[in-house]
Amino acid sequence: MAGNTIKAAIVGATGYTGSELLRLLAHHPQVEVVAATSREMAGQPVTGLFQHLRGHLGLDFTAPDPSILKRCDAVFFATPNGTAMTMAPELIEAGVRVIDLSADFRLKDPQEWRRWYGVEHACPEYLPQAVYGLPELRRELIRKARLVANPGCYPTSVQLGFLPLLENRLVDVTRLIADAKSGVSGAGRKTEIGLLLGEAGDNFKAYGVSGHRHLPEIRQGLSEVSGKPVGLTFVPHLTPMIRGIHATLYAELIENVDLRDIHGLYRRRYSGEPFVDVMDPGALPETRGVRGSNMCRISLFRPQDGRTIVVLCVIDNLVKGAAGQAVQNFNIMFGLEETAALGDAALQP
Amino acid sequence: MAGNTIKAAIVGATGYTGSELLRLLAHHPQVEVVAATSREMAGQPVTGLFQHLRGHLGLDFTAPDPSILKRCDAVFFATPNGTAMTMAPELIEAGVRVIDLSADFRLKDPQEWRRWYGVEHACPEYLPQAVYGLPELRRELIRKARLVANPGCYPTSVQLGFLPLLENRLVDVTRLIADAKSGVSGAGRKTEIGLLLGEAGDNFKAYGVSGHRHLPEIRQGLSEVSGKPVGLTFVPHLTPMIRGIHATLYAELIENVDLRDIHGLYRRRYSGEPFVDVMDPGALPETRGVRGSNMCRISLFRPQDGRTIVVLCVIDNLVKGAAGQAVQNFNIMFGLEETAALGDAALQP
Amino acid sequence: MAGNTIKAAIVGATGYTGSELLRLLAHHPQVEVVAATSREMAGQPVTGLFQHLRGHLGLDFTAPDPSILKRCDAVFFATPNGTAMTMAPELIEAGVRVIDLSADFRLKDPQEWRRWYGVEHACPEYLPQAVYGLPELRRELIRKARLVANPGCYPTSVQLGFLPLLENRLVDVTRLIADAKSGVSGAGRKTEIGLLLGEAGDNFKAYGVSGHRHLPEIRQGLSEVSGKPVGLTFVPHLTPMIRGIHATLYAELIENVDLRDIHGLYRRRYSGEPFVDVMDPGALPETRGVRGSNMCRISLFRPQDGRTIVVLCVIDNLVKGAAGQAVQNFNIMFGLEETAALGDAALQP
Amino acid sequence: MAGNTIKAAIVGATGYTGSELLRLLAHHPQVEVVAATSREMAGQPVTGLFQHLRGHLGLDFTAPDPSILKRCDAVFFATPNGTAMTMAPELIEAGVRVIDLSADFRLKDPQEWRRWYGVEHACPEYLPQAVYGLPELRRELIRKARLVANPGCYPTSVQLGFLPLLENRLVDVTRLIADAKSGVSGAGRKTEIGLLLGEAGDNFKAYGVSGHRHLPEIRQGLSEVSGKPVGLTFVPHLTPMIRGIHATLYAELIENVDLRDIHGLYRRRYSGEPFVDVMDPGALPETRGVRGSNMCRISLFRPQDGRTIVVLCVIDNLVKGAAGQAVQNFNIMFGLEETAALGDAALQP
Repeated sequence: MAGNTIKAAIVGATGYTGSELLRLLAHHPQVEVVAATSREMAGQPVTGLFQHLRGHLGLDFTAPDPSILKRCDAVFFATPNGTAMTMAPELIEAGVRVIDLSADFRLKDPQEWRRWYGVEHACPEYLPQAVYGLPELRRELIRKARLVANPGCYPTSVQLGFLPLLENRLVDVTRLIADAKSGVSGAGRKTEIGLLLGEAGDNFKAYGVSGHRHLPEIRQGLSEVSGKPVGLTFVPHLTPMIRGIHATLYAELIENVDLRDIHGLYRRRYSGEPFVDVMDPGALPETRGVRGSNMCRISLFRPQDGRTIVVLCVIDNLVKGAAGQAVQNFNIMFGLEETAALGDAALQP
Repeated sequence: MAGNTIKAAIVGATGYTGSELLRLLAHHPQVEVVAATSREMAGQPVTGLFQHLRGHLGLDFTAPDPSILKRCDAVFFATPNGTAMTMAPELIEAGVRVIDLSADFRLKDPQEWRRWYGVEHACPEYLPQAVYGLPELRRELIRKARLVANPGCYPTSVQLGFLPLLENRLVDVTRLIADAKSGVSGAGRKTEIGLLLGEAGDNFKAYGVSGHRHLPEIRQGLSEVSGKPVGLTFVPHLTPMIRGIHATLYAELIENVDLRDIHGLYRRRYSGEPFVDVMDPGALPETRGVRGSNMCRISLFRPQDGRTIVVLCVIDNLVKGAAGQAVQNFNIMFGLEETAALGDAALQP
Repeated sequence: MAGNTIKAAIVGATGYTGSELLRLLAHHPQVEVVAATSREMAGQPVTGLFQHLRGHLGLDFTAPDPSILKRCDAVFFATPNGTAMTMAPELIEAGVRVIDLSADFRLKDPQEWRRWYGVEHACPEYLPQAVYGLPELRRELIRKARLVANPGCYPTSVQLGFLPLLENRLVDVTRLIADAKSGVSGAGRKTEIGLLLGEAGDNFKAYGVSGHRHLPEIRQGLSEVSGKPVGLTFVPHLTPMIRGIHATLYAELIENVDLRDIHGLYRRRYSGEPFVDVMDPGALPETRGVRGSNMCRISLFRPQDGRTIVVLCVIDNLVKGAAGQAVQNFNIMFGLEETAALGDAALQP
Repeated sequence: MAGNTIKAAIVGATGYTGSELLRLLAHHPQVEVVAATSREMAGQPVTGLFQHLRGHLGLDFTAPDPSILKRCDAVFFATPNGTAMTMAPELIEAGVRVIDLSADFRLKDPQEWRRWYGVEHACPEYLPQAVYGLPELRRELIRKARLVANPGCYPTSVQLGFLPLLENRLVDVTRLIADAKSGVSGAGRKTEIGLLLGEAGDNFKAYGVSGHRHLPEIRQGLSEVSGKPVGLTFVPHLTPMIRGIHATLYAELIENVDLRDIHGLYRRRYSGEPFVDVMDPGALPETRGVRGSNMCRISLFRPQDGRTIVVLCVIDNLVKGAAGQAVQNFNIMFGLEETAALGDAALQP
């Protein structure tokens, strides 16, 4: 680390998570972004593509050059799945700390990876050292990690929502249901007919019901916490908004526990967490209330005093669900204030 | 009934369900709309308020005048809850057939009504003869009904989605979950801060989690079909679109049944239904695919071959969820072609 | 024409104008759609792509086969620019009447075509017989046309808005301004980053300010009406909605004319027109008021009694701005009721 | 001023401009917000209403109490028109510096005020000392002002866009046209049917064409700069987005001036301005590129090298068009860094 400034690079900086990293890091007090890579747009100013960064960033896109990346203190991968696993090993060996926002290092089992992503994993030997970067669960491991697998957006919201229930063995883990709704930016900045405003606008639909790639990731995380395999039905939906995830979680109480007691558990579990906000029972979190911020906001219900607990959990899929959490992990890894560059209030309305 | 034309009136015609009735009935081949009432806008042309009806309707709003309503063959109530129950009896006794789009006659138990709607029911003696107007369930009763309680929008989608599962005793009815998402028009054309584009736009939130007024209505319907009280967790959500409901339903199979067999049951159950469309397994219904139409579109899933069946069910909340179903009921009551005035394809994109 | 039914085909049926033609023609009383072509999706059911047409259409997409197209009475081209000009001549010579929704036959001058569309025109010899299909301007020519060039969406709204002012020589034609706003469906159903909900949603921008392809088309039309070249500044904008064009037109009065007199001229000019609705002065047309309908709605203003006349003009870009106008032209060409299949009220809200 | 912290209060803090002031001031390094007033919500926590401020602000709403306001260094009025003029004098006399975000002190002529706002001005004697707070035009006066009239959102965008053209006498000021488009938050957080998502969503309309209250304000500003009365046609439109104004301005060159020269004038005019960004000719500013930021972004065109200059100008109506500009004025008034609390990049997508 040269002087007081940490040199960081973003590989794959033309997507939504890449541009969000740029937005956040542009004003990070201890960071200098030295490279934002894009093969296609190499040589062009970042602000040509991202008008909102005019005046905040003087960088041009560059082709991803290992010799430059290796001189960085930290490299963020905001690439499509399958890229980081081919580039990360060389960087890690050169002493660079890597934060991968793609799915490449999230699953511990390379077979499972192949099953869901359709190709062999390029460096399964690195999976054991990859730390799954959910700070609320593994802060200490993240601190020392050389390679952080930044969680997916759905997995972040579903795990943070279920965690205290599972840690306290309150619910039947064979019957978990996660009905999740995402804004379109969750699918990335890519040309897909279904993401057009003319198609996704004023429309609501489920997708990936038979099996979404975030399912094994969530299952892995929840099973680890539960100490046994969980049974999870996960149904993601596309909702006509730009940012935000709203996870509506259903779990069945094993025995009768008062909602206030469960609420107390959540409060205590997340009391030291700068980015988890447990609301009073009855409150209704809104996705816009976390728009642009790294906050995860949670509320609990027990409708008609039945055995079903309903957890509502909202995040901004691009911030706590991607770039913000990556910066949070970065802050932890480098011993910085965990909230550095993440202190802004959400933009509402 | 004078000649071949059926005289119909709409009480409370300035809301979304009222204007939708006007849109549909304006081109109904056997209907003459003789009155569209509004105390506030009496004397003003309907097209002053509803630009889209210019050229389709020559009517002025009038104050609700019982002497005029009594001369109609049919009266639709598109009023807020609590109005129809004060006006309907007089009309029914005068031989008018009444279709109430509000909640006044949906619950059979007047105590339950008071509990959820906060006031005494004004004419509990009419509840027994009120037919719950879900044609797929009570076509024959509707045919002879003098008073039809048009189902709510959520209840329509949730009941049509669950019906074959419950009729065939396939699932554990103590564990039903309905996670439903509605466009903002479901809340009506009323000035409520939360419905502003500045508030509800680019935002997603749950509401009524502790208990929504449609819960007892759905429970009543499903319990009747099941022959015993059902346990239902119902979580409605507000999604930033104008029209449409997407109900995602979860039920647990009692024993192992192949998804194809369940699909077959749905197909047969709804084979003669003009307005229920069961898609092939794996298909994903979209709300825009029924925008402006009376169709209900259903798809079935059994993720990871587990015991949870997921039913996706979409309707247009203002059409099959309100005005369209009311016209369908009207057609049945008057022995007309059931699809009259309801034949248009949805408007997509 | 075999029997009473007119056989029609749609070439390029997977786009928005194609699907809109299918929606309208599916219920046209005198039309049988015999082919909907798509090279890519040949062999697949139309309703696999267009869920909203399930139950309304039994067709599969087919590859465009001249031998089939030649047996049609009418062929609609809903193809990208550059396709119709290579296929239409053969069909015309075979006696098929062609309605081209692309730009191929809109400009009379092949040089001008090359200048704006970047390629040589493939059949300039057909340009003289191509009738520009704005029924309000050329109904009689359309009636006899073998080849109709269906106007662009912006040109339809701008011309209908300016027409009476120019025909009556009321304004300085060297100073016309058309500030037009379009929903995203105007750009077609194509994968373009800028049309994603994540990009175009909650955003407003101008485009094509230096020169949009609809500029020469509008200029040609207005100049013909004026009897001299017009000076027009045309600025199109992309607005975050799905359907609709709102053209705000500015023109300078040559001499002092009362707004009521101008309004009277507009009323008379369009009095026999089934699809132009001139509102009272002061009324504000809304795009949603024509959503899904073939209506063009116009309102006039003279702010502060100055010399500037402001004309507001709204259409649905996919209906009066494309498929609906094409069906209107078709109806005229085949001597049918001009409003056949175009009678529905707009869908609002 | 006590110590280093400036005590500020916001009167009328439940609207959009009020909440935006709270969002910005919550992290202003030199400001302590001591009061956020609301008669209706007095006693309730601000974060009960504004979920996005949870964790950023510990304040409860209070009734507006002059004795508390008088002890502040600065008071912001984010009230409906007509309130500030009744409360400001007392505060000003007590030495408080007042920034009024409403229209009360924007027009210099009290007759004009009465004409457009329908009531007598309550303190016309304060109009002469009120400084119109457009920093790009009156920074020095703002520095010493006791009372700043914060410009309207449309006036900010239209004036910044026209300014260099008028200051340099390049265009015919009798023929200015401003076609402006605003997101719905410009109308405030108020229950108005037309602002519902069900009404304003997927819709586009003009309003106030005959005369909008921002017209005299813009005319006053432009006339002062021009040294003579300007002729301006101003047409505002409502566009289905939450934040943002896009002004499309048309002016006629008096003599032939190269666009590059005009561009140079704009660049020089705004070279020292932290919040005006003149793009290269041909660039297309987008409202989302300034979403949540205080930036005004401008681009220039001269279509077809004609005599019409087109200026595109975007701002966030709630930031540079209201709360952000108010904070900018506040910073100037108190000798702070002009960009304090205003440094964030826009939130895109």
